[in-house]
Amino acid sequence: MTQFAIPAIDRTLEPALRTKLDGLAKPPGSLGRMEALALQLGLIQQRLDPQLRRAILLVFAGDHGLTQEGVSAYPASVTVAMVQTFLAGKASANAFASATDTEIRVVDAGVAAQLPPHPGQLDQKIAQGTRNAAVEPAMTLAQCEEAITRGATIAKNAAAEGFDVIALGEMGIGNTASAALLMHRLSPAPLAACVGAGTGHDAAGLARKRATLERAAARTTATAPLDVLAEFGGFEIAMMAGAVLGAAQAKTAVLVDGFIATAAALAAIRLAPEVQPYCIFAHCSAEAGHRLMLDSIGATPLLDLDLRLGEGTGGLLCVPLLRAAARILTDIASLDDVLNGRL
Amino acid sequence: MTQFAIPAIDRTLEPALRTKLDGLAKPPGSLGRMEALALQLGLIQQRLDPQLRRAILLVFAGDHGLTQEGVSAYPASVTVAMVQTFLAGKASANAFASATDTEIRVVDAGVAAQLPPHPGQLDQKIAQGTRNAAVEPAMTLAQCEEAITRGATIAKNAAAEGFDVIALGEMGIGNTASAALLMHRLSPAPLAACVGAGTGHDAAGLARKRATLERAAARTTATAPLDVLAEFGGFEIAMMAGAVLGAAQAKTAVLVDGFIATAAALAAIRLAPEVQPYCIFAHCSAEAGHRLMLDSIGATPLLDLDLRLGEGTGGLLCVPLLRAAARILTDIASLDDVLNGRL
Repeated sequence: MTQFAIPAIDRTLEPALRTKLDGLAKPPGSLGRMEALALQLGLIQQRLDPQLRRAILLVFAGDHGLTQEGVSAYPASVTVAMVQTFLAGKASANAFASATDTEIRVVDAGVAAQLPPHPGQLDQKIAQGTRNAAVEPAMTLAQCEEAITRGATIAKNAAAEGFDVIALGEMGIGNTASAALLMHRLSPAPLAACVGAGTGHDAAGLARKRATLERAAARTTATAPLDVLAEFGGFEIAMMAGAVLGAAQAKTAVLVDGFIATAAALAAIRLAPEVQPYCIFAHCSAEAGHRLMLDSIGATPLLDLDLRLGEGTGGLLCVPLLRAAARILTDIASLDDVLNGRL
Repeated sequence: MTQFAIPAIDRTLEPALRTKLDGLAKPPGSLGRMEALALQLGLIQQRLDPQLRRAILLVFAGDHGLTQEGVSAYPASVTVAMVQTFLAGKASANAFASATDTEIRVVDAGVAAQLPPHPGQLDQKIAQGTRNAAVEPAMTLAQCEEAITRGATIAKNAAAEGFDVIALGEMGIGNTASAALLMHRLSPAPLAACVGAGTGHDAAGLARKRATLERAAARTTATAPLDVLAEFGGFEIAMMAGAVLGAAQAKTAVLVDGFIATAAALAAIRLAPEVQPYCIFAHCSAEAGHRLMLDSIGATPLLDLDLRLGEGTGGLLCVPLLRAAARILTDIASLDDVLNGRL
């Protein structure tokens, strides 16, 4: 994957950005993390006046062979039903996208069904679901590389289309199981600390999920990020990892949603640590393990609203924060202008 | 102030709202605090499909006689300069209002200067600044009642104009000092736990502020909310307290910003506890004491982004969250419809 060598972000503008922020008509630092976000956007866009005009949510959908082991409280068929719900504009992500003036597109990374074409859907299907990672690799290395490459292309195309921020969302029954395995191997962290209830397990379901993931983890000693992604899946996670790489190549901010999107960002960061300054971590999921995974990459999410849905819902709620952060650098008068009556 | 008897919020719709939320195409409760917010909006508006179309920020401005004691790191003249900056559209609040599609108006509650008329400014000046609360009551009881009444009228007018949410902001050099005294007497809490650095004190400034507030607190044993407001000020805080009362009377959601706006809400809640279900607490300020003040009324703010500016900046960042919360109840398909192909 040498084509994903990302140049380190150019920090030349940082002193000028800090000087500008500190010279605005407010006590220095009084906008807290919003100022840090403004600085980050300035560095990403290499501008003293970063802009956040158009935002897009890409919802990557894929199915997981692991669901054969009962790792999810929901049947795999829900993935297809939810893709149809996104396309009908009636999922939670659509509601939040409307509220935050964000465009939304669904990417079929590997749903286990043939989906009818739809203008809001990108057909990038690698296969109809991954294999069962409890007994064999979820995908081949070639499939994994293909998923990453496609994800990067999708993100670069979105940036070229004029989107200033790319939010990553996902839909895939069973994908907290894959994400837990990725976290276990890439953070790394003990498996027990990585496994949570997902969207709604009871105690028996959670025990079954834990046992299955122990079998999957015991099957391979892989630790290299590409190998780990191929071993544990899923297609939507590998494609999101590619989207992080592509967004960084296109010098575009990427909003990382919850547990699963963070696992994808973690994989991307392990492949190319230089992507991290392009990542904005949106929301601390209620899913057990998310805080620990964020800690492993030194990330502090913007929101903590007890969400545990995915779909990009947490990222969407941060789009207005990014818009506000950009406007700190474009809309606020300097203290000097205020004190000298130059408004 | 018997005219501010607020009827208890009608909770008749609560079971229907919960049933609707639990029947949406997502795991029950998976949108966490956003679902609680949707429920709150439904109860405030008495609708199963609450709406958040138009939002307004009211920035209440006033000066404080306490500044004569050096309780602020900034001179009182900054209040006027910042009012002019709001009206020129170039303050932090304007930047965030633009980013969140929120209208903004400045209310002159008691700035210590004659301000020229401006279409974006409501002249509701009670007096040119409060008196020095370290040596005498900040205002008369009659002034306090007048400020509250005017604040209530402003909020009711905004609701009648079609604003679905009223965000409260403030500008007033020295007003963390007033707010600390209100918190001390109304939470109640030891004074030391209520006093923080404001927008930017050094250690000597903070010590001076503490000593001044100890003198002010020692001057009176008032604990009744109206008396406490009159003793410690300020006009903008009393008017914000009135706005909370008026918003509740108009069955309109009110977004409470940081430390000072919360002190105003605390006063309103002590005057009429029934207003609290109409209050949405936006942001936990970096100002020492804010968390404790919020705890004293059992409030958990939505955001924690290390803001310590005021102006309503924290409230503005929550406007999109309210829009998203309302859309949970209007835009998401029911699980039943998804499972039965009725999209």
